[in-house]
Amino acid sequence: MTMIDDIETPCAVIDLDRVERNLDRWQGYLDQHGIANRPHIKTHKLVRFTRMQLEKGASGIACQKLGEAEAMVEGLADLGPLDIMIPFNILGAAKLARAAALSQRCRLTLACDNEAMVAPMGAAMANAGCEVGLVIEFDSGAGRCGVSSVEEAVDLAKMIERTPGLSCRGFFTYPPVGAASRVRAFFDDATGRLKESGIETDIRSNGGSPDMWRAHEVTNATEHRAGTYIYFDRMQEKAGSGSFEDCALHVHATFVSRHGDRACIDAGSKSLTSDLGGLSGHGMIVEYPDARIFRLSEEHGHVDLSASVTKPAIGERVRIVPNHVCPVSNLFDTVVLARGGEVVAIETVNARGRVT
Amino acid sequence: MTMIDDIETPCAVIDLDRVERNLDRWQGYLDQHGIANRPHIKTHKLVRFTRMQLEKGASGIACQKLGEAEAMVEGLADLGPLDIMIPFNILGAAKLARAAALSQRCRLTLACDNEAMVAPMGAAMANAGCEVGLVIEFDSGAGRCGVSSVEEAVDLAKMIERTPGLSCRGFFTYPPVGAASRVRAFFDDATGRLKESGIETDIRSNGGSPDMWRAHEVTNATEHRAGTYIYFDRMQEKAGSGSFEDCALHVHATFVSRHGDRACIDAGSKSLTSDLGGLSGHGMIVEYPDARIFRLSEEHGHVDLSASVTKPAIGERVRIVPNHVCPVSNLFDTVVLARGGEVVAIETVNARGRVT
Repeated sequence: MTMIDDIETPCAVIDLDRVERNLDRWQGYLDQHGIANRPHIKTHKLVRFTRMQLEKGASGIACQKLGEAEAMVEGLADLGPLDIMIPFNILGAAKLARAAALSQRCRLTLACDNEAMVAPMGAAMANAGCEVGLVIEFDSGAGRCGVSSVEEAVDLAKMIERTPGLSCRGFFTYPPVGAASRVRAFFDDATGRLKESGIETDIRSNGGSPDMWRAHEVTNATEHRAGTYIYFDRMQEKAGSGSFEDCALHVHATFVSRHGDRACIDAGSKSLTSDLGGLSGHGMIVEYPDARIFRLSEEHGHVDLSASVTKPAIGERVRIVPNHVCPVSNLFDTVVLARGGEVVAIETVNARGRVT
Repeated sequence: MTMIDDIETPCAVIDLDRVERNLDRWQGYLDQHGIANRPHIKTHKLVRFTRMQLEKGASGIACQKLGEAEAMVEGLADLGPLDIMIPFNILGAAKLARAAALSQRCRLTLACDNEAMVAPMGAAMANAGCEVGLVIEFDSGAGRCGVSSVEEAVDLAKMIERTPGLSCRGFFTYPPVGAASRVRAFFDDATGRLKESGIETDIRSNGGSPDMWRAHEVTNATEHRAGTYIYFDRMQEKAGSGSFEDCALHVHATFVSRHGDRACIDAGSKSLTSDLGGLSGHGMIVEYPDARIFRLSEEHGHVDLSASVTKPAIGERVRIVPNHVCPVSNLFDTVVLARGGEVVAIETVNARGRVT
């Protein structure tokens, strides 16, 4: 029997009880509101947890890169064809050839937010003898990708529908917090306008974890894509979507140096990422919540202990809730799955490093 | 013949001509000043470039983690025992056993900055029947690890010398910019005080790339540990140690979306890292130097084009100088080695993800 503390630090340790509780609670909420659950697997990148999400009722998954989708299709072939959405624009001949091949191994939905993408994607699909459904991204205030207006969305949908190899299945967005009424209005307007033109769509996909418990306010959404809800993190705790007791992934680290209130742990940006996410400090040390990880080198976390009444000993092991858990999954070749302090499995992070 | 543009984005492309020029220039400078070159391989994590650094005259290498050192020992067994320093405190039974094993395969020097480490490390080495040399870290102003005073260093050195399995070889620091006189004074004082006590030391190891061209001001340093100088980056350009023409690693990315001045590239924090390094924006786009990568999601770089007179087309490929290149090496399973636009090799990043 291996105990968590037998695993060398830094390591990423996942509490399976919390994972299951987080998945159940979210699936139950969406079921109650009649919204399909399409978890974004970018957070965990694990075949095992994708399987768990599907077994608990998810209708399909979202992957941010082709490589993530390929890893899931390979790892879950026994489940039959998966329903996969990639809410990220796929461009370029090599990637389009991969997308065409992938579309023959799963039910694939791809993203589009501009006209320049349409003809090359259609040609790639038609040449491969396949057809792929597209969802049009709109910007609901996050200012990232997406068309800016219903008019643009409708024009793009019509163009897609005219293109052999492609069809328009609907719309999606990655909204900022508090955008429910805007998202709802866009879904209504765009879907209605297309219907008037004789184009029926079946996807209105909303997303994000920070505002997840208000997903039902987008009453016309057919599905919701949340990722971080499986683990939660310090950003989600700040946003109010999960508490520290829900946080399922901790980076375990060791105090390797201490001189008075100046201390270092063996987890730096290569374990915690330097994503601040608008927070002060780089993660919360569970055992020393008043200690402050005020800077990260690659391998050092610089800790200021001046506000901490008790001080750690050199060699002491601690657990850290990272600010943003998704990139943490991408930094570890393996994660430690645990229950009650005991190691259940050392799991390879299947889709880690799938950058393309 | 594969051309760089045949490789899917995002990818990390390394210009071999620039690498060789950077290595030669630095080795020449250190040779001129009689300082040994101990490159820090954390920046590139490649067996191939470690070999190149040694062939060009490096006396040994620095690795930040045991796993990095193990990867280099495995990959360079044909060179005979390497001289490896790990300037990071090694604690815990499992790591100490690995360190003891490693010390039998190379000339290993380990770090120490506190008394609590000494007895366990000595016991681990003595039990394994080996002896390891230690260098004592002192804080020369960076406020990370290291003893604060010469007195502490001398006391620690004496304790190490009294401990079977250990010996004290000298001192090291990772200084902030402009600390040359402080580093020199510490080296002098600490080395002299030990000599008076009958303890001879042979290492006075200085480090860092930002201030590298002033390394000769630490006239009593026996060696210098620089890492980033092999690739340089936007932080080094800002510090003045290298120019953009010296930058040897570019992340190649594609514009996947653009609506007016709001655009996205397919390189986010999973390719560029979110290390800001005190700079504004997350990397410099060579083809659009006035464009601003103002935010990173995991897979998106959010680009503001308002200051850019020319605007990229959707699908256009660009090269980015990252703010901080070292963590970029840790994000890619492979890097593209190139000369004159042509791909020479797709190289596995041997020590990527070696977190322990």
